[in-house]
Amino acid sequence: MKIKRVTVTPIAFRDPPLLNASGIHEPYALRSIIEVEADNGVIGLGESYGDAPVLAALLALREPLVGLSIFDLNGLETRVRAILSTLPPPEAGAELAPGSHPSKQIPNAYSAFEVALLDAQARTIGVPLVELLGGAVRDKVPFSAYLFFKYAAHIDDCYPPDPWGEAIDPAGIVAQAKRMIDAHGFESIKLKAGALEPEVECAAIVALSEAFPGLPLRIDPNGNWSLETAVNCADQLYEMLEYYEDPVPGLQGMADLHRRTGLPLATNMVVTDFDELRQSLSLDSVQIVLSDHHYWGGLRRTQMLAQMCEVFGLGLSMHSNSHLGISLMAMTHLAAATPRLSYACDTHYPWVEEEDEVIVGGKVPIIGGCVAITDAPGLGVELDRDMVAALHDLYRTIDIRSRDDARQMRKYRPDWSTKKPRF
Amino acid sequence: MKIKRVTVTPIAFRDPPLLNASGIHEPYALRSIIEVEADNGVIGLGESYGDAPVLAALLALREPLVGLSIFDLNGLETRVRAILSTLPPPEAGAELAPGSHPSKQIPNAYSAFEVALLDAQARTIGVPLVELLGGAVRDKVPFSAYLFFKYAAHIDDCYPPDPWGEAIDPAGIVAQAKRMIDAHGFESIKLKAGALEPEVECAAIVALSEAFPGLPLRIDPNGNWSLETAVNCADQLYEMLEYYEDPVPGLQGMADLHRRTGLPLATNMVVTDFDELRQSLSLDSVQIVLSDHHYWGGLRRTQMLAQMCEVFGLGLSMHSNSHLGISLMAMTHLAAATPRLSYACDTHYPWVEEEDEVIVGGKVPIIGGCVAITDAPGLGVELDRDMVAALHDLYRTIDIRSRDDARQMRKYRPDWSTKKPRF
Ligand SMILES: [Mg+2]
Ligand SMILES: [Mg+2]
Repeated sequence: MKIKRVTVTPIAFRDPPLLNASGIHEPYALRSIIEVEADNGVIGLGESYGDAPVLAALLALREPLVGLSIFDLNGLETRVRAILSTLPPPEAGAELAPGSHPSKQIPNAYSAFEVALLDAQARTIGVPLVELLGGAVRDKVPFSAYLFFKYAAHIDDCYPPDPWGEAIDPAGIVAQAKRMIDAHGFESIKLKAGALEPEVECAAIVALSEAFPGLPLRIDPNGNWSLETAVNCADQLYEMLEYYEDPVPGLQGMADLHRRTGLPLATNMVVTDFDELRQSLSLDSVQIVLSDHHYWGGLRRTQMLAQMCEVFGLGLSMHSNSHLGISLMAMTHLAAATPRLSYACDTHYPWVEEEDEVIVGGKVPIIGGCVAITDAPGLGVELDRDMVAALHDLYRTIDIRSRDDARQMRKYRPDWSTKKPRF
Repeated sequence: MKIKRVTVTPIAFRDPPLLNASGIHEPYALRSIIEVEADNGVIGLGESYGDAPVLAALLALREPLVGLSIFDLNGLETRVRAILSTLPPPEAGAELAPGSHPSKQIPNAYSAFEVALLDAQARTIGVPLVELLGGAVRDKVPFSAYLFFKYAAHIDDCYPPDPWGEAIDPAGIVAQAKRMIDAHGFESIKLKAGALEPEVECAAIVALSEAFPGLPLRIDPNGNWSLETAVNCADQLYEMLEYYEDPVPGLQGMADLHRRTGLPLATNMVVTDFDELRQSLSLDSVQIVLSDHHYWGGLRRTQMLAQMCEVFGLGLSMHSNSHLGISLMAMTHLAAATPRLSYACDTHYPWVEEEDEVIVGGKVPIIGGCVAITDAPGLGVELDRDMVAALHDLYRTIDIRSRDDARQMRKYRPDWSTKKPRF
């Protein structure tokens, strides 16, 4: 069962004008679709970032992986390290996509193929991926409603408004939450913050707590608040928050904030690898790690992270960037096999348009806030090759090659600076 | 692929009169042989302690595991926890077999079946177990020559002398090392200490360093030395030791010794689970963890331990109690798939008589100090059912039901006390 062929296809899909600490989402998000074909005819699937430096690494690995056993994850790591060491150093990646950071090049490329190999293994055996990861401790995985302040349409005239409408105040956020929860039944809510004035963002949390009494709430300013701002907001929101995600930048900043407020702090920014986890443990910076198999080095390494969170008494949930169904199902199988993953996970998936999915049957349903595991082998999804081709054609026609939310924001506000924390 | 039948067979095999900190080995060692038969006809093998409390737990789990998927390791853990919580609390186990401690009942029973399930998985797929564990980073695994002070024969007249002869001084240890290295080609040496006067044991290390220049040496007094004794011995042995294994008892004692001597300290006594590892990290008690899948909770959990050792910069090697070839091959496949396992592992296997192995073909060869991985599916060994039956009959005729080296020593020295540290 050796790898016969590797295909990496960059694609683009529509993304709404979502506001965040760096700026605003561009009209298209990029992903790479990975296919690993083994000599037994099985094809394992993977999905990763589509930004240029990541794509270059994935493309460079296609040939060198031919001949590798689909079980040989150690051999995968060896080859990834060897090949990537011969590439020019990658440029800086998107600030809010930790997996596109240059320091994440190896775990990121490794992960993209690890998922595809594990998928191929599970399909070869004829079991769902969750079985290979240790068996399901839950048959459906809860996700949270991921809310964004947003404009009604992208600034360039050529893009029609998206279906979601404008949300630039607490009322808009509550309306967005109602719509997303009506559609998917989410039982917890995350608000992306760090974009508007903190008073507006805190007022949005207060409005959500009134509109959805009892639902766990989270706010994520992406490190865009000063310690003082974060302490002030903590005072207002203390009783309402399930956890407080990356309010301030840096391991020391988070440690200071936790000492000042006592609130459990979550992160996908200051603990993004095992070395930062070690530092966080010695500083007591964070209490909940938002894992992401795309940059933590794959599904099995994320399970090792889960073990470490158990040993050190940390909570564990999941981070998300814009993604499609292959990533969603990898996250779902992983979460289903990981007892420690006890919070509802983040996902951008509701923001993907129905027509923009690359898997057969269209978008994976989210029902009762959950994605279900099925009995189908591997990830349980098949590629719609016509859709991959169409989204690859779209990728070829656009000029975005690496996500840059600040560049996009300068179309709206030419003086937009990337200084942080802004508030 | 569900479990159809579970068999647990207690066996006994001859053990030489090996001296240690607790006393002396009894004439027989006990093990449990585990067979897990799946509904696809595949049988997965496991081997664990044979002491009464462990055996009771393993026997109690036979029926409840029927129907479980051979892939469902999370389900295995759930069932182990549920069933063992209904048993009476186990009695204290043998002091030098950490896996027979009452606190290890759950990871120990889990591990015994986890290995059998992973073996069944690999046999079902048709790949060596090492592939399922991530692929071989080495095709043969180095072990060390494990030397013991010993008498020529057991005290009771009914037992003939074993083939190894007496070793109660440095010359006897050097002769034993020569014989063991001639037979197996070991390239490192471990001396079990804590049994005789420390001066004799240190002199044995000096004699070994002269007889085998350049070979890495280790000494393991099993926590039977005071801090002062351990510091004095460190002064004499500093340049000769690869690492210094459990010279003194307790996490604090080890931390004090490391601070006093700077020598890298290894342990299988003060770090035997993830909670103790956490404590050790905060005290800087040990620098090398001697893992043992039998009580760390199986092969995958030991790989998580390896990841933690990598994160925290700890070395990793392997501990051993008296065992047969199923355990040896589980250790070998695990070590072959674990990059971090970079020291030669411990094994008691050379002390097993040629006729006492339960696997087809007799004892696994150790050549050039190494055990090789083969292409055979799973663990790569098959049960010799006649031998299992013979060693089970032997078990039924003897009266040892739990290892007790102190009780055995009182046959030689009626005033033998278990106070530690003795020296
Ligand atoms: Mg975040
Ligand atoms: Mg030891």
